[in-house]
Amino acid sequence: MALTGELFIGGARHSTPHRFHAVDPARNSLLEPPFSAAGTAEVDAACALADAAFDPYRSLTPERRAAFLDAIAQHILDQGEGLLERAREETALPPARLTSERARTVGQLRVFAAELRSRAWLGLRVDPALPNRQPLPRPDLRQRKIPCGPVAVFGASNFPLAFSVAGGDSAAALAAGCPIVVKGHPSHPGTSEWVAAAIIAAAAETGMPAGVFSLLNGPDVALGAALVGDPRIAAVAFTGSRAGGQALMRASAARPKPIPVFAEMSSVNPVILLPSALASRAVSLAQAFVTSVSLGVGQFCTNPGLVLALEGPGMEQFVAAAAAALDAVPPGIMLNEGIRRNYAQGLERLAEQGAQRLAQAGAPEAPNAARAALFSVPAATLLARPALAEEVFGPASLLVRCSCPAEVRQIIERLDGQLTATVQMTDDDRALALQLLPALERKAGRILINGWPTGVEVSHAMVHGGPFPATSDGRSTSVGTLSIERFLRPVCYQGFPEDLLPAELHTTELSRWPHRFDGELRLGKPV
Amino acid sequence: MALTGELFIGGARHSTPHRFHAVDPARNSLLEPPFSAAGTAEVDAACALADAAFDPYRSLTPERRAAFLDAIAQHILDQGEGLLERAREETALPPARLTSERARTVGQLRVFAAELRSRAWLGLRVDPALPNRQPLPRPDLRQRKIPCGPVAVFGASNFPLAFSVAGGDSAAALAAGCPIVVKGHPSHPGTSEWVAAAIIAAAAETGMPAGVFSLLNGPDVALGAALVGDPRIAAVAFTGSRAGGQALMRASAARPKPIPVFAEMSSVNPVILLPSALASRAVSLAQAFVTSVSLGVGQFCTNPGLVLALEGPGMEQFVAAAAAALDAVPPGIMLNEGIRRNYAQGLERLAEQGAQRLAQAGAPEAPNAARAALFSVPAATLLARPALAEEVFGPASLLVRCSCPAEVRQIIERLDGQLTATVQMTDDDRALALQLLPALERKAGRILINGWPTGVEVSHAMVHGGPFPATSDGRSTSVGTLSIERFLRPVCYQGFPEDLLPAELHTTELSRWPHRFDGELRLGKPV
Repeated sequence: MALTGELFIGGARHSTPHRFHAVDPARNSLLEPPFSAAGTAEVDAACALADAAFDPYRSLTPERRAAFLDAIAQHILDQGEGLLERAREETALPPARLTSERARTVGQLRVFAAELRSRAWLGLRVDPALPNRQPLPRPDLRQRKIPCGPVAVFGASNFPLAFSVAGGDSAAALAAGCPIVVKGHPSHPGTSEWVAAAIIAAAAETGMPAGVFSLLNGPDVALGAALVGDPRIAAVAFTGSRAGGQALMRASAARPKPIPVFAEMSSVNPVILLPSALASRAVSLAQAFVTSVSLGVGQFCTNPGLVLALEGPGMEQFVAAAAAALDAVPPGIMLNEGIRRNYAQGLERLAEQGAQRLAQAGAPEAPNAARAALFSVPAATLLARPALAEEVFGPASLLVRCSCPAEVRQIIERLDGQLTATVQMTDDDRALALQLLPALERKAGRILINGWPTGVEVSHAMVHGGPFPATSDGRSTSVGTLSIERFLRPVCYQGFPEDLLPAELHTTELSRWPHRFDGELRLGKPV
Repeated sequence: MALTGELFIGGARHSTPHRFHAVDPARNSLLEPPFSAAGTAEVDAACALADAAFDPYRSLTPERRAAFLDAIAQHILDQGEGLLERAREETALPPARLTSERARTVGQLRVFAAELRSRAWLGLRVDPALPNRQPLPRPDLRQRKIPCGPVAVFGASNFPLAFSVAGGDSAAALAAGCPIVVKGHPSHPGTSEWVAAAIIAAAAETGMPAGVFSLLNGPDVALGAALVGDPRIAAVAFTGSRAGGQALMRASAARPKPIPVFAEMSSVNPVILLPSALASRAVSLAQAFVTSVSLGVGQFCTNPGLVLALEGPGMEQFVAAAAAALDAVPPGIMLNEGIRRNYAQGLERLAEQGAQRLAQAGAPEAPNAARAALFSVPAATLLARPALAEEVFGPASLLVRCSCPAEVRQIIERLDGQLTATVQMTDDDRALALQLLPALERKAGRILINGWPTGVEVSHAMVHGGPFPATSDGRSTSVGTLSIERFLRPVCYQGFPEDLLPAELHTTELSRWPHRFDGELRLGKPV
């Protein structure tokens, strides 16, 4: 497929006179073609189409929408190496990573297609009429969840496929029945155009309304603010920096009618190394830690950026092994120049605030290359300077030397909200782990024992969310089937005759699907 | 019980030198005793206790918390006439209404106790480990919902029992496992003290931690802002005016860590009278409408404040019958002087903006008494002046004369979000109803056919919520068992050994309760 650099307004390609280029971060060179930048006219046109598509799209059966998601997945696969090659040029991510990210992207589209067919997400409930109840009869009450309206999806720089144009947010919103207007990330507009072409082809093939999908590109942050400010947008999904997410939260709060903003923003993903684990496997922990912290040049929301360890010989062994392993990690090319610059500044900030650098002092020479880094501070320093626990996006981590379990607990209690928290332990650490787990639960959306936080399973039980600032709304997840709930709201139908009820609330349909009948959960029996 | 005018900080009574009085609205006279007003020191003390109580309270079994809720209900009932008499003095609500409101309050505490025991709210999910999966194994992933933290609950003026100290928000938050700090409504501090005493007695009887409940009173809006600003508060529940709710939304957005605000604020609850319904039963519709609009002196969030009717003889008959019925409704005493003044100003605003008054021109003489009122405008006027469709809290309604179904649809599409929307119809109106229902779904949380919106069932399928400004978060309901979800967030446990999992995620416990196993819904079998 030859890239044209055009936007997609509904199913139609569209160009503007304002152009920008993608940059190959490995060479700091411009990539062709130039891309059209969207302005307020394009926001207006895309939102108008999305709004017009909302009723037709949401009234399709779950099977129809599932077929659309499956078709997007197939079209992405059918694009073959062309898509992956463009993504590699725009992000410097290695081919193996992009291949597995494509598999995840396709997989999550299919997971949502299956979830759609299950009807579990509809939240069906019936409270039958009680005409003879005293003192007042009860009317027939039925509930289902409906989609909230058109959703603005912001592509993320660090997942050009899995959290961008057809990524997790798009899959969840489209599954819910919401048309989407995607603001593509300006670091990878070519990848976005490839994926948008797959979505448009799938929409045409499965008979979706034209406005179900639009792609707006542009290098200017004003584009995102204009999109969030459009009165037809009903919710926002974003993965990116805390500054970016909070800007969207403010843009929503400033609307005459505020809307939910689901921003996945900032997390240092504390890893707690308990004494017996350190005593029994400090070196293997250090090696696994270095693999996790340097994976993908550390450009993951779940990167382990903070390590809490109890002082002792095990910790010293861990530090020495981790420093040696980090020294052996070759520099990696970061996603773009801004991310590399922010990473360098983050390392400087850690050093200025008194963290001691344990590994990787030299700066690499290739454009946008970065080295993994490990710092260390005593717990007292972190407690005095909590800014040390702020995210440095990239392959950096801060080891905190704790003198006693109480200090570990104290640090956990002072932490901001997190996507993940990890405990490395053995059976002998059980008593201490039981003390810490309730505190970790209050801070994080996912807790791991003897695992590493990088790598997020797309499944039913996954939570990729957590208290602010991990996300703007700690009740949400942006990965896994539960993430569809961000884009649904309940509606109650009172006293409806059968023939006016939505199809899934008809008595015969209800008996086929999971629902609560007067509170009692029933599985339903698909025929 | 003799009122002392004290606050409750945890289980302990507490007084301050700053005092205020309740007012008997029927006499505009002060009621004894004076009540202590809370300041920032009391906010701090109550929030510190709530925070300390969070872990012990949330770790209790659902049965323990259910017993607490049941005990609150029993203690409220055991207070007998004293509670009702004080509520009558402070609100001027008639005894029959207060008796039924108490029944609803007790009923909703018991509904949440039963819901707790069902475990449905836990949202249990398990994705079992797949150790042999290629290219990567899947770890064991389990999910449950945990409470978000201490909740600030704001008592509502118009439901001194059912939406105040032990009302629906308190029941849902306590059921979820959240300690609550209640900001009592300053119109009924004596009622609040009665109910608080019931909660304290129930907490002591069932062995709850002291900080599970505090009651702060005070006439100053700064108290509410201080409570919402406290860093230990994790969520806010509010029922009241749009101005009040939006102030709390702003207070949350201004926090270093914003929190969810669930404010139920403003709704005119449109009622659409379709032609055949008007032709066949205009007079009975008018009578039922007047009953609904004047119930409780119109002081319900679900009051039918907007009526859309197609012009014709049926509409004229409806108008004449409604005007006559309204003229026969005696004046009623409103809840407080501020509400009465706002109501009078709301009626003036309608008249100034060109609405024609059809009934009740004279002002009643008793203190704080108000008459029901019906206004009328052509559809074109409403479309030109959308402020006519803003809520006037009280027994007022605006009839909109529509010349064609397209005009009805156009008005619906321009409306703000609503708690309810009602269609009055017969079989002959079916085609028109089918056209309007999708538009109504986009605007309202509950849609009624041939009912009246006042009267909200506390059950599983109820939704008392809706798009902004009906609520601050249209994905929420503040009535019914689904309302517990406002105060829960999901947590994922990855790779946990059985003995470190929370009790309800142990494999044996899971088999007893509803859960999703690798996506498949299972009922579980209680032993």
